[in-house]
Amino acid sequence: MSREKKKAVVLLSGGIDSATCLYWAKNKGYVLEALTVHYGQRHDRELRSARRIAKAAGARLHALKITLPWLNSSSLINKGKRLPNVALSKIGTGGVPSTYVPGRNTIFTALGVSLADAVGAECVVIGANALDYSGYPDCRPEFYRAFNVVARLGTKRGDQNKPLRIETPLVRKDKAAIVRMAGRLHVPLRWTWSCYLGGRKPCGACDSCKLREKGFEEARIKDPAL
Amino acid sequence: MSREKKKAVVLLSGGIDSATCLYWAKNKGYVLEALTVHYGQRHDRELRSARRIAKAAGARLHALKITLPWLNSSSLINKGKRLPNVALSKIGTGGVPSTYVPGRNTIFTALGVSLADAVGAECVVIGANALDYSGYPDCRPEFYRAFNVVARLGTKRGDQNKPLRIETPLVRKDKAAIVRMAGRLHVPLRWTWSCYLGGRKPCGACDSCKLREKGFEEARIKDPAL
Repeated sequence: MSREKKKAVVLLSGGIDSATCLYWAKNKGYVLEALTVHYGQRHDRELRSARRIAKAAGARLHALKITLPWLNSSSLINKGKRLPNVALSKIGTGGVPSTYVPGRNTIFTALGVSLADAVGAECVVIGANALDYSGYPDCRPEFYRAFNVVARLGTKRGDQNKPLRIETPLVRKDKAAIVRMAGRLHVPLRWTWSCYLGGRKPCGACDSCKLREKGFEEARIKDPAL
Repeated sequence: MSREKKKAVVLLSGGIDSATCLYWAKNKGYVLEALTVHYGQRHDRELRSARRIAKAAGARLHALKITLPWLNSSSLINKGKRLPNVALSKIGTGGVPSTYVPGRNTIFTALGVSLADAVGAECVVIGANALDYSGYPDCRPEFYRAFNVVARLGTKRGDQNKPLRIETPLVRKDKAAIVRMAGRLHVPLRWTWSCYLGGRKPCGACDSCKLREKGFEEARIKDPAL
């Protein structure tokens, strides 16, 4: 009896978290379908990273571009808005930050579910994590648990009683634990991109750069991208 | 104390069902934000209908274009595939039809939730109905009930304990009941478009045309678009 290899859709932005998810799925033996979405974010430098990492992992890359005009309220997209520059210790205490993109992970997860239903993948892997980013409502574990029900009820696979799960392997990890996990899985960290600004080199000053730096420091690993 | 008018996002394709939803929300006194999505469907004739109907209802129209290459498996998008031509009596008995677009309503609902969170709308109104289309998994009431949880957990509005509901006012109605409802609400039915083929005139032969004809017949109303 031939046994077809199982497929996973992995949302791949090009940052450390999503690259680690891709290698987590690779390590589990899945055939990889990576999905990268350009939605007008400042840092489209990420996309080049996504291409390199997908190729290195042997994943098929689906690159999408969507323009959602109403997302202009987020400082992550609107260049007229100042990016927040808060002490990392305050993360998770001050409500929803201005970099929140309304419903972004809801849309991304929906796109992942659609792709999974179309290509016959049994899971959608997403690098959300609730610890370092607790200001974002769409990063909590209960959000993804609820999306599992949507994925099961709203798809052909679900209708045929085939599995279609949302997997969030990083959801309870802090950045240092993710960096250590990336090291164990041989993620090509030198190609990952975190900076919100998207220049030629990481700015070192934005929240995302600082979070990355803190993660590598605490994991006692040297950041190969610097 | 000033009392701001409440907003609703309405998914508007340009067909009878979504136009009826728009007028249902108008009738409830909502400020209307209509969302129409072009995803490569054969019948982009619909979009012109959506524009006309949005204007007539006084709704602001958000028109989006997204290309999802993996949706090419659906006969509703791929012109190389034959549209099904089954007796209407068989609808709901034969599993998921070939016009099913993987995860389409999951994506549309997610886009609606994102827009609602960005503009401050308290509901997303969707013209899904489970009766005439029971072959589509993403038209069942329980799918939308599950999405309510996602919308509450995944948005800034939900995080702030403001309402954000999915409304499906047609979910238990058959086409005749929807046509009668449209009549009562003064929906400009002459501008609605149903035909899957998207020619200059409705083909009269596709499933969608036949369903429309049956609806008008049973409601004993003359179709003003013919």
